[in-house]
Amino acid sequence: MKVVHTVREMQQIALQNKQTNQTIGYVPTMGFLHDGHQRLLQSAKKENDIVVLSIFVNPLQFGPNEDFDRYPRDEEHDREIAEQEGVDIVFMPSVREMYPSSLSVQLNVNNRTNVLCGRSREGHFDGVVTVLTKLFHIVMPDKAYFGLKDAQQVAVVEGLVKDLNFPVKIMPIPTVREQDGLAKSSRNVYLSKEEREQAKYLYHALQHGQQLVKKGEKTKDIIINEVIQFINSKTRGKIDYVELLTFPNLEQVDQINERVILATAVQFERARLIDNIIFEKNGEITITSS
Amino acid sequence: MKVVHTVREMQQIALQNKQTNQTIGYVPTMGFLHDGHQRLLQSAKKENDIVVLSIFVNPLQFGPNEDFDRYPRDEEHDREIAEQEGVDIVFMPSVREMYPSSLSVQLNVNNRTNVLCGRSREGHFDGVVTVLTKLFHIVMPDKAYFGLKDAQQVAVVEGLVKDLNFPVKIMPIPTVREQDGLAKSSRNVYLSKEEREQAKYLYHALQHGQQLVKKGEKTKDIIINEVIQFINSKTRGKIDYVELLTFPNLEQVDQINERVILATAVQFERARLIDNIIFEKNGEITITSS
Repeated sequence: MKVVHTVREMQQIALQNKQTNQTIGYVPTMGFLHDGHQRLLQSAKKENDIVVLSIFVNPLQFGPNEDFDRYPRDEEHDREIAEQEGVDIVFMPSVREMYPSSLSVQLNVNNRTNVLCGRSREGHFDGVVTVLTKLFHIVMPDKAYFGLKDAQQVAVVEGLVKDLNFPVKIMPIPTVREQDGLAKSSRNVYLSKEEREQAKYLYHALQHGQQLVKKGEKTKDIIINEVIQFINSKTRGKIDYVELLTFPNLEQVDQINERVILATAVQFERARLIDNIIFEKNGEITITSS
Repeated sequence: MKVVHTVREMQQIALQNKQTNQTIGYVPTMGFLHDGHQRLLQSAKKENDIVVLSIFVNPLQFGPNEDFDRYPRDEEHDREIAEQEGVDIVFMPSVREMYPSSLSVQLNVNNRTNVLCGRSREGHFDGVVTVLTKLFHIVMPDKAYFGLKDAQQVAVVEGLVKDLNFPVKIMPIPTVREQDGLAKSSRNVYLSKEEREQAKYLYHALQHGQQLVKKGEKTKDIIINEVIQFINSKTRGKIDYVELLTFPNLEQVDQINERVILATAVQFERARLIDNIIFEKNGEITITSS
C-alpha cells in the first residue's frame, strides 16, 4: 500500500493507471474510518483494478461554528483499515497542499441544498463539491463510492457529475448500522453513554415512519409528526429536522407517489447525528447492497 | 476527420485515446475560424498525437445584451479549415446537448475579472469557466491551446486549471494579426470599410505605449493617456477601456516594475474589438510563438 501526500504524485500515478488500462475505484473520506467506509472500500475493491482511498478533512465544508478543529482523526488506525481492505493507494494531502492560496474560482450548489442538512449548513455543499472537483481531477477515478447515510451528499454529487460531465460514475452504497440500528458515523464517539443508548431510536423512528407507509399512509405531515413524536419521546436530543422528500431530486411532496427519502438530524450534546431511509411509494426498500 | 456531436461519443473517444497513450491537444473555439485559430491548431498538431477542435457558441458567456444570436457561424468553412490543419476530431455539440437542463452547480470566477473586459461583461468569465470545465471533462486533453488576444481569458483559465487541479496544461499562443496589425477576430467581419481602416490603430496605439516604456517611461497614467489620445485621434470607435496591469495576475500598478499587459477594448458600430500587448518592464516582448 502506497501513501501519497502530494497532488502531483497522485496525478502521476492516476495517469499511469489510465495508460495501463487499470480502472480506479475511489473512496473519498475525511478519515476516522468505520464499518461504513469499509463497506465502500469493499465495493470499490470488488469492482475495480485499483482502489484509492483519500483522507482529507476539508475545511471548506465546515461552517464557522462547526467542528473542523475537533473532527476526530486517527491516522494510524485508518492506515490499518486501509491495509486490511486491500487499498492500493492512500492519498492524504495537507490543507496547504489542497488549498495553497485562495481559490480564483468558486463552486456553488444551486439545487437540492435548501432542504435537510443543507438548510442549516450554509455553504457546506459548496465546500463538498469544490473539494470533490479537485479530488476527482487528482485521483481520476472511474467509479467513486459514497455512503447513502449522507443521502443529500449523494444527490448533490450526482448533480455535480452529471451537469459538469465528469467522466466518473457515482456509486451510492447503503448505510451500515450498529446491531441496534444506529448508523455508523465518525461522530458517534462524541455521544455520552446515555445518548448512545438513545441514538438508536433515530433509526427506529424512521422505520416507524416507513411502516406507516407500508400500511397505506400517504400523507407527509402525518408521517413526519409520528416520527417527531417518536424521537422526542425516546431521546433527549434536539430535532433539527424530520423531512420527507422525493429522492434523488429532494423536492417537496404532500402525498407519497414516488421514491422518497425520510430523513432526520438530531443534535445531541456534542454530536449532531443524521439518518435516513429511502423507500418506494408502497414503503418497500429497493436500494440494497451490491 | 471525425465529426462528433454527442458528449457520450466524445468521452468514449477520449478514453480510448488515453488507453492507447495518445496525447490529446485541444483547441476550444466558438467557430468561424480564422488564422488565429489555425495558429492554435498548428501548435496543437505539432505537440500532440491527436488534435481535437470543438466548435460551440456558448450561450452562458454572452450577456443579455450581447451578440449570441448573431455571433457569426460558418460550419462548412470551419470544417474545411479543420481538414486543412489535420484536425482528427471536431466536437460540435448542440446547446441542448451541453445544457440539457439548468445546472445544479454554478462556477463563479472571483479573481482577475473586475478588470479589462470582465468589468463590463458581468458573468462572462463565469460562463467561460463553466463551459471549459465541461469541455475539459468531455475531451480530456493533455494540452489546451488559447490565443493571447483574449489575455484575460488565458489568465482566468490558468487560475481555473491550477486551483481546481485539472490534469490539463494551458498553452498560451501569441495573437495573429492582419498585415496592417489588426488582431484577427471573428467579429472583424462586422466592421464597415471605414472602421476596418481605423481598426488597425488599436494595435498601433498599444505599440506606441510599449515604445514609451522602451524609451524609459514607467508611469502608468502617462502611458494610458497617450494610448487613449492615439485611439481617439485615429478612430471613431468609443473606447471602453485602456488598461495597464500586471500579467498574469492582472493587478493594478502605478509604476511598471514587472511584466505587464497593456490592453484596450473599443466599441465600433457593430463590433467591439479588443487587443493587447504583453511586455516586460523594459518594454521588451518575450512571449513569442512556438
